[in-house]
Amino acid sequence: MAEPIRIGIVGYGNIGKGVKKSIEKNNELYGDVVVAGIVTRRPDAIKAEDPGVQVAGFDNAGDLNPDVLILCGGSANDLPIQGPKFVKEFTTVDSFDTHDNIPSYCAEMDSAAKAANNVAIIATGWDPGTFSLERVLADAFIPGVNARGFYGQSEKGGLSMGHSDAIRGVDGVKDGRQYTHAIPEAMAEIKNGKNPALKAGEMHWRECFVVAEDGADKKKIEETIINMPAYFEPYKTTVTFISQDELNEKHSGMPHDGSVMAVGTSADGSKAMIEYRNEWGSNPDATANILVAHARAAHKLKQEGKSGAFTILDVPAAYLSPRSKEELLKNFM
Amino acid sequence: MAEPIRIGIVGYGNIGKGVKKSIEKNNELYGDVVVAGIVTRRPDAIKAEDPGVQVAGFDNAGDLNPDVLILCGGSANDLPIQGPKFVKEFTTVDSFDTHDNIPSYCAEMDSAAKAANNVAIIATGWDPGTFSLERVLADAFIPGVNARGFYGQSEKGGLSMGHSDAIRGVDGVKDGRQYTHAIPEAMAEIKNGKNPALKAGEMHWRECFVVAEDGADKKKIEETIINMPAYFEPYKTTVTFISQDELNEKHSGMPHDGSVMAVGTSADGSKAMIEYRNEWGSNPDATANILVAHARAAHKLKQEGKSGAFTILDVPAAYLSPRSKEELLKNFM
Repeated sequence: MAEPIRIGIVGYGNIGKGVKKSIEKNNELYGDVVVAGIVTRRPDAIKAEDPGVQVAGFDNAGDLNPDVLILCGGSANDLPIQGPKFVKEFTTVDSFDTHDNIPSYCAEMDSAAKAANNVAIIATGWDPGTFSLERVLADAFIPGVNARGFYGQSEKGGLSMGHSDAIRGVDGVKDGRQYTHAIPEAMAEIKNGKNPALKAGEMHWRECFVVAEDGADKKKIEETIINMPAYFEPYKTTVTFISQDELNEKHSGMPHDGSVMAVGTSADGSKAMIEYRNEWGSNPDATANILVAHARAAHKLKQEGKSGAFTILDVPAAYLSPRSKEELLKNFM
Repeated sequence: MAEPIRIGIVGYGNIGKGVKKSIEKNNELYGDVVVAGIVTRRPDAIKAEDPGVQVAGFDNAGDLNPDVLILCGGSANDLPIQGPKFVKEFTTVDSFDTHDNIPSYCAEMDSAAKAANNVAIIATGWDPGTFSLERVLADAFIPGVNARGFYGQSEKGGLSMGHSDAIRGVDGVKDGRQYTHAIPEAMAEIKNGKNPALKAGEMHWRECFVVAEDGADKKKIEETIINMPAYFEPYKTTVTFISQDELNEKHSGMPHDGSVMAVGTSADGSKAMIEYRNEWGSNPDATANILVAHARAAHKLKQEGKSGAFTILDVPAAYLSPRSKEELLKNFM
């Protein structure tokens, strides 16, 4: 058997920790990947937290001798700098998720990766990522269909980190969480083969749990949240004030779920429906699993002599799998 | 814009007719594919049926100048002969669906295609096909999960051509149809995160509508069907005798539907669930759409200088799509 792929983890927040656990689980199951170490701005702190793990700073990631780096930073501030920096030396995988900026980030990573003869798989996770893949597949397999995403169909809804951050940025807010909920009537209309033009606020509503600072003006906090452009203004939004204890107890998890729904017709007018649904008890751990599968693909592309930026749309499924071609043909087709 | 891909259709039954309609719809929408013509053993009959279409016999398919041939024959008798024959001269796509024989068919098509420097995409449709893809993706994204297929969750169930043929082969049977039904309790157990070992008969049951010949022994027909090994014996099976008129009226369609369900955990034990579901008013028309998308991919692989046999697991999603890389990055990621 080939040597396991050595994966370095850049950044050690929720996703980075999830990536480490996922590599360890994949190693147990298949032995084809191994943790090379953590690349971090605070090596001493990580070392203290987890003495068993190899650690390197941002400027000596090469000491870990990684085949692939998984970049676990955020899209707003980390990846636009770290992506182009690390791909100059390494093959990388990231979950850049600012949808509007994917074309420009892809172009930048593509030229940096090509110049260095490395591979970068960008913008992978579940959306962008598996949901992008399913939108493209549904569009190809049901010509003319309109594939749409719904989020938060589970009872609790889907925890949105971005919207939770937005709440926590409001004056007088000590802590907060936001759950996105799909509107069932909109999903039912689409499922029944209607193809209504739906505005964002007709597909989802937003539920906020807020811990106010002592003496803060709750009425003003609520109005600020509800009227926040793009984040909350287009949606029906509820704001519930709770204590920090209650928030810690009931809202410390990071569940998320969603569906890509594509309902149209075949050429003769008969119904054609594809629905792809996922439900994650832990959004960062699910994202981590998807990133690790893409590290396999990135390594294989690099070994084939490819270079440049790739997305999940450019990667054959067999490249993501730990299994041999023979096993896939025999047991998975 | 590039010249449209010229697609020849080999065989003009339900799937072949669906392929023609699908190419025409894709042509209307995207202009990237066009019907080169029908390759058939009965050119005169097809020409009489549809005077507007180009027709060629099995030995002069080259007269249609096709870039890709979609082979629409059956897996039992047609494809094992037609696949190796046509790939010697053309790039091909087929829906070979005898799961157990996919490895050997793939090996044979691979050597024939490589010898001729052609591309063959084999065994594509929805199962094998999109369901194979989703099993592999779920297995890669939820390490250790057991991805399983259910069929016939819709009220009417899924019409199985193979089982309908088996019924029609029974002495005293004039006509018949078989609907496969998923057993909801089994799906619920899996959805709830249990991972039970389920036998075939615990996942599905089979509903048969039979038209008996005049004077036939209905009791004997029923027993023969219910006890037929592999097809019906492992399942709860019901047999209902109806008239030919009722069968024609209520059971002439070919609906089918199913789900790939994968319910497991991420490395930390949190729930991780993927469900891929499709529902087709016309099974052959849905299969046809999937075949046409793969004709795009086969042509692109051939243009890149690739050769050999490929499955849906080897094909990047972008190759199946009629859309440009720029459009995919901007609107689908």
